[in-house]
Amino acid sequence: MSDEVPLDGEPADTHEAIMMATFSALRKHGYPGISIQRIADESELTKSTFYHHFDGKDDILLSFVQYMREYFERGYRIESTGDPVGDLRAFVTVSLGEYPAPDGTPNPEARLSTYLELRAQAIQNPAFRSEFTELSAALVRNLTDIIETGVGQGVFTVNDPAATAEYLVATIEGINLQQTTRTDGPRTMLQESLERYIRTEVLAEDVSF
Amino acid sequence: MSDEVPLDGEPADTHEAIMMATFSALRKHGYPGISIQRIADESELTKSTFYHHFDGKDDILLSFVQYMREYFERGYRIESTGDPVGDLRAFVTVSLGEYPAPDGTPNPEARLSTYLELRAQAIQNPAFRSEFTELSAALVRNLTDIIETGVGQGVFTVNDPAATAEYLVATIEGINLQQTTRTDGPRTMLQESLERYIRTEVLAEDVSF
Repeated sequence: MSDEVPLDGEPADTHEAIMMATFSALRKHGYPGISIQRIADESELTKSTFYHHFDGKDDILLSFVQYMREYFERGYRIESTGDPVGDLRAFVTVSLGEYPAPDGTPNPEARLSTYLELRAQAIQNPAFRSEFTELSAALVRNLTDIIETGVGQGVFTVNDPAATAEYLVATIEGINLQQTTRTDGPRTMLQESLERYIRTEVLAEDVSF
Repeated sequence: MSDEVPLDGEPADTHEAIMMATFSALRKHGYPGISIQRIADESELTKSTFYHHFDGKDDILLSFVQYMREYFERGYRIESTGDPVGDLRAFVTVSLGEYPAPDGTPNPEARLSTYLELRAQAIQNPAFRSEFTELSAALVRNLTDIIETGVGQGVFTVNDPAATAEYLVATIEGINLQQTTRTDGPRTMLQESLERYIRTEVLAEDVSF
């Protein structure tokens, strides 16, 4: 796999080409409608190439979940800038999908939608569930680091950074689920409430967000 | 359909028997594995009975989403007791699935799991999306009423009851999604953070939850 963020740019190898074709097929047909033929149709590869690399449809889909997990862990990891307020804002913005997509790449809502569709499959699929448990843990660790840095600098007043990070991650997932499963686009309104929560529960007095 | 809460007790008619069989088949096989044969296998009805009542699998599944929507709207509707603090607590408890299931009925987590699996299908399915948009609106209206009553009684201090209700519903869905897609059962920890939010952001001073 390349050093690039997955799903962006040209595939580095056949494995990545298959993953990108899987993403396209999931966008087009949804999880219940997926088949190896439909994944192959999204690429320039033959079905036999797929069987050379994978044991079958379930194997491809689990690999895709692992690939998405890597995508979210890397793409949504906020590197510390030394400014935890800015880092927290970046975490919220990125994890709500509010960033511009480069030309020719899937828009953030497409990625979040596919992520949530697969995440819901974890309810029934233990292998998916392990992957998503690890992904949540990685996001929470990243956010906990940001919060602890802010507490250290005196800009955040949080007693339990890990618990606050868990709660923020759950709330953000809830907002994303509402946004992607409703016709009335509630994200902006919900984000305002989230930011009010951050101002009153996370930030020290006189720190603006 | 009977006056009973759906999914509880004996089915009142063939339509309800088919809905209950659909629920069992979804629990057993997951959404991608569902077929009319598998639904029929969960009932004492023949496949031809299913085709007599429904146009096919997609028609059964949309009916099931409508049935679940009714189940959640009715089962999770908190009737005012005149005590908005108790009503809010009941809303949180019920919507997190923290109530005892009567013998012989599905446990609350099974219901929430199936609900979330179907809700995620709304990402790709416009008919499902309309139903879940309406369901969210009904839950938000119910919670807004509770909050407005509490503001009127001076036990809640909330500027925008509808926005607070939207935010609480999204947060609760996020907690349920984490709970049903992770191996580490984070609900109790997340619920504590939710209750802290309610104490500091919703309740008037000196009101306990």
